[in-house]
Amino acid sequence: MALTASAIPGLPEIEPGADLAALLAGALQSPLEPGDVLVLAHKIVSKAEGRIRTLSSVEPGTRAIELAERLGKDPRHVQVVLDESREILRAERGVLISITHHGFVCANAGVDASNVPGADAVVVLPEDPDASARRIRSRLRELTASDPAILIADSFGRAWRHGQCDVTIGCAGIGPLEDWRGRHDATGRELKATWIAVADELAAAADLARAKDGSEPAVLIKGADRHVTPDDGPGARAMIRPEAEDLFRQFAPETT
Amino acid sequence: MALTASAIPGLPEIEPGADLAALLAGALQSPLEPGDVLVLAHKIVSKAEGRIRTLSSVEPGTRAIELAERLGKDPRHVQVVLDESREILRAERGVLISITHHGFVCANAGVDASNVPGADAVVVLPEDPDASARRIRSRLRELTASDPAILIADSFGRAWRHGQCDVTIGCAGIGPLEDWRGRHDATGRELKATWIAVADELAAAADLARAKDGSEPAVLIKGADRHVTPDDGPGARAMIRPEAEDLFRQFAPETT
Repeated sequence: MALTASAIPGLPEIEPGADLAALLAGALQSPLEPGDVLVLAHKIVSKAEGRIRTLSSVEPGTRAIELAERLGKDPRHVQVVLDESREILRAERGVLISITHHGFVCANAGVDASNVPGADAVVVLPEDPDASARRIRSRLRELTASDPAILIADSFGRAWRHGQCDVTIGCAGIGPLEDWRGRHDATGRELKATWIAVADELAAAADLARAKDGSEPAVLIKGADRHVTPDDGPGARAMIRPEAEDLFRQFAPETT
Repeated sequence: MALTASAIPGLPEIEPGADLAALLAGALQSPLEPGDVLVLAHKIVSKAEGRIRTLSSVEPGTRAIELAERLGKDPRHVQVVLDESREILRAERGVLISITHHGFVCANAGVDASNVPGADAVVVLPEDPDASARRIRSRLRELTASDPAILIADSFGRAWRHGQCDVTIGCAGIGPLEDWRGRHDATGRELKATWIAVADELAAAADLARAKDGSEPAVLIKGADRHVTPDDGPGARAMIRPEAEDLFRQFAPETT
């Protein structure tokens, strides 16, 4: 079955308190169908949830000031990153890699200043992106009687490759990982290590369909029906590799 | 513009020496159009290029025997991984992470036994996947007078997330990275760190469109026209982060 991804045009600038599901329902150009997937840039979810920090009201601490100086960053911005981090993994070459409170390993704990009106504001990740996805799904069900999968996406860098790919940081109604381990390939041989990060591949596909200037933060994907589930499922937290299985983060942590 | 990814049905099992471009041209259900992208599972490219090793003819060395014992693997398979590796980064918990001769950081240097007929054979990555992509593109141009982008994909795991996503290991006719750094977002603010791994997102989108049992190794993507280039471009090697900029690989290397 062909996969199609199309940006949903015409969403307004999202304000804190906005009913995102209602805005999405209003912007859709045709009714949702069973098996549809909606991929939302995390920024609109964060904004609707009021997850915005005003830098002028942030008082940077000693560690933020030290890191900011070393990395050439705004100490107030670094303080927000520290507030959003469980641990800082690397602070080198102007890059701050942290583990967020959710367990995501990413640059700047996902704190982002782009696509935010007001030069003084930064957007932080939703507090519980899986819960956010479930709430939006539930509200859409109320409004439209349809039941799309909801994915909340952010752009993450990769340790060994240039550029960023969108990944899913929160989801509801999707099997985030498709497990082919133990199943057999077309020649009858067992597929040894095929465990597909479906939710991340969907986020990546969605990213290709929208304008990066932030004016198209929502994308509708059709053709991924087999991954869409009636129940909300385990969420994106199921994709976080536990620290005990991590072969890379442990070594040479940043020390201050 | 909507992005569409559809598997190309009906490709035969690929034999060494096969004219892959001719088989693709024959399998396409309608003529290629400008801006089309063809994403090929690396395995069919490797097979056509004869990049197959027969385990019964592999003589494992001391290091392969030691690693195999420690990881619970076939020493002949480990020897092939060593042959394909510039360096072994981690050998823990049954997992062998290496840097291939191309510079890719991945499990088992991309050596794979699934979807290979003959229980004794393993497929290794193409020697120069960018050159492979250029050759296939050039041959398709000869046969069809059209000029699609060619991407060669493999499934890579991620250090901090479960599951694998398809990424591009070789390409021609595509801008693999789209650089928005220094450009401005919808509110006029500079986009600070937006550097999109377009070729990897395309590989991920393609992976969603095909059956994972290996019977649909080629996918046609439409709607990514703005990334398709008349010239072959820098290839997937442009996406490899140079070792000097790598914050993670250096530490705690595997020692034998």
